[in-house]
Amino acid sequence: MQRCEALAKQSELAGGLTRVFLSPQGRAANELVLGWMREAGMQVRLDAVGNVVGRYEGERAGLPCLMLGSHLDTVRNAGKYDGMLGVISAIECVASLNSRNQRLPFAIEVIGFGDEEGVRFGTTLLGSRAVSGTFDFEALKAKDANGVSLEKAMRDFGLDPRRIAEAARTKGEVLAYAELHIEQGPVLEAEGLAVGVVTAINGFSRLRVTLAGMAGHAGTVPMGLRRDALAAAAECVLAVERIGRGEADLVATVGRIDALPGAINVIPGEVSFTADVRAPRDELREHAVVSILSEIESIGKRRSIGVKVEKLQSQGVAACAGWLMRQMDDAVAAEGLPLRRLPSGAGHDGMAMQAITDIAMLFVRCKRGISHNPAESISEADAGAGAQVLARFISGFSPRR
Amino acid sequence: MQRCEALAKQSELAGGLTRVFLSPQGRAANELVLGWMREAGMQVRLDAVGNVVGRYEGERAGLPCLMLGSHLDTVRNAGKYDGMLGVISAIECVASLNSRNQRLPFAIEVIGFGDEEGVRFGTTLLGSRAVSGTFDFEALKAKDANGVSLEKAMRDFGLDPRRIAEAARTKGEVLAYAELHIEQGPVLEAEGLAVGVVTAINGFSRLRVTLAGMAGHAGTVPMGLRRDALAAAAECVLAVERIGRGEADLVATVGRIDALPGAINVIPGEVSFTADVRAPRDELREHAVVSILSEIESIGKRRSIGVKVEKLQSQGVAACAGWLMRQMDDAVAAEGLPLRRLPSGAGHDGMAMQAITDIAMLFVRCKRGISHNPAESISEADAGAGAQVLARFISGFSPRR
Repeated sequence: MQRCEALAKQSELAGGLTRVFLSPQGRAANELVLGWMREAGMQVRLDAVGNVVGRYEGERAGLPCLMLGSHLDTVRNAGKYDGMLGVISAIECVASLNSRNQRLPFAIEVIGFGDEEGVRFGTTLLGSRAVSGTFDFEALKAKDANGVSLEKAMRDFGLDPRRIAEAARTKGEVLAYAELHIEQGPVLEAEGLAVGVVTAINGFSRLRVTLAGMAGHAGTVPMGLRRDALAAAAECVLAVERIGRGEADLVATVGRIDALPGAINVIPGEVSFTADVRAPRDELREHAVVSILSEIESIGKRRSIGVKVEKLQSQGVAACAGWLMRQMDDAVAAEGLPLRRLPSGAGHDGMAMQAITDIAMLFVRCKRGISHNPAESISEADAGAGAQVLARFISGFSPRR
Repeated sequence: MQRCEALAKQSELAGGLTRVFLSPQGRAANELVLGWMREAGMQVRLDAVGNVVGRYEGERAGLPCLMLGSHLDTVRNAGKYDGMLGVISAIECVASLNSRNQRLPFAIEVIGFGDEEGVRFGTTLLGSRAVSGTFDFEALKAKDANGVSLEKAMRDFGLDPRRIAEAARTKGEVLAYAELHIEQGPVLEAEGLAVGVVTAINGFSRLRVTLAGMAGHAGTVPMGLRRDALAAAAECVLAVERIGRGEADLVATVGRIDALPGAINVIPGEVSFTADVRAPRDELREHAVVSILSEIESIGKRRSIGVKVEKLQSQGVAACAGWLMRQMDDAVAAEGLPLRRLPSGAGHDGMAMQAITDIAMLFVRCKRGISHNPAESISEADAGAGAQVLARFISGFSPRR
């Protein structure tokens, strides 16, 4: 918990936490983490894209590794645990092995990814995509709010963008990737559980819908002659909610809505809104998207409202590996905690890491499910429980045969 | 129609029409109208608040007048007929009497109000409120977008704000106020009618509703644990529409909606929206407002969403006088046109004028009900029909006994 506080002080925002990729604050956080890694008996380095990497050798040098980690960047006005808790917990586990001089039949690497949130350049998972060999070099042209490209920011930080490929790891080097992370949702709290084993990082589909009705004077157009784009959008919002409620583990959200012209005395003629649909199974999500689109079409038809749909982004499920989930369950049970498996609604570095290795995640309860917010909070007891389970998982880890 | 075109050229907006109170363009429009009034045989003046007034004496000088008119200011990016058509039609009627040297047993005054729309100072009906003796002198402090107060704008225009009261007319001077105006709605067009007789200028109530739910990550919060302020607002929007549809002549509109934080991947935690409710009977409108508030309360309660309601403005119905409606009906019938009475959903100068005299209004069909828009359009035939009915109304006018 003290280390979470120490990292939270490395912020561009006085009185709050904002720390983006390749920033002076990022460098200061890296230095702190590299120091803790060294203390825990690891060999440390900054990799070619700016990730912090610590390696704790196994019974002999050069063995394939169990990779642990999370990210060190934050959103704007962030909490103290999203990302950082996973890095710090992994270092603590290695420190514990090191204090007993214990070596395992595999190496352990702890990684602090430099960018997961994508706040600075608008592209997420820059750190883990480099490690998994799936880095999109087009992203080097992406610019931050000050017009600085990722390419220039890397050079300014002392990194050579031409060498990013050197950060990539091979399948033979990595036995598995396991990440401890706060849940960022309210499920564990609602069920009174300290930790849960993640089944999958949900896939997502994002849509932008534009409804074209007919603007008109709010006083003069009788109800029966209206083509009110906002009333149509209201039906759509409720359809999205209803479809999201229709299946367990499915969520569907309208997060943005804009009604034009937006005057108190004018019937809205054009409304646009977004929909974000997530599920732990791709066919469940795809089916929900089809249902949503069909509902919107039929609402538009019934109300004589034009419908335009843009599919913005989508990403398939990153399933956690069964054999790793079973080992994580065993670690939970060994700590005397109840078993609970749950999907992750939020994205994580495992989405990138699955390109080279099987992935596992352990969630730690967070207060009221609040995240991406200064009010993000966890208890010391839960942080301890999470670290203990992770330690059990590491010491009991058996690579897939 | 040519005069409507000529007035439309007096605009601060090249290629569109915007003309606000006490502007150089307003002065140019006044000059045009004063000229047309003089040509029609009227004595003309600019009154103390900046309205254009033309007087055509009756059988002897100094008789009480039938007052006709409308407004000469416009909204931003306006149409050519809203307001202007009523002033020009009235002048045409007087010109016709004058060409035949015909004098009536009452005087006629035609007034072109300087401000009805309230665009410049955010306060409507400044012209007609001065004439009806209901001018709110607090409005003198109101400032335009450049920080110029109404008081200063009047002085810059050559008017003395201390003399506004001199614009007020007495009950004895005015027998009735009659206004021809475009409908600004689609009812007459839908029924294939050129004109309609207005029963009342609807009263209105305006509300701002703020719903407080709980923001959260769109991926991590299960549907069952959400307090989604936008989904609640969507139910409210549909409730407003349903209640508006529940009674003929009632209209209810949600024109603005703002959802916070407004990110594609965040459940909206706070949503505010407006409601605008209008009806030709006050009790109908008040009952609708009560129903809307009760629906919103029950939606909030069911969804555990906080509800805050601000009542922004309300204004009672300005009923047109039965004796004047009957005389207007007679004029419509004398032109061989079908009778149709309808309420006015939009506000008009009659709302102010009813403080000193009975009011009547004649609506002229406009294309697709579009108004406050450059696409505002009427046919030459309908403009002619409206002016003919107004002329019949004037020549047949019999003051209330």
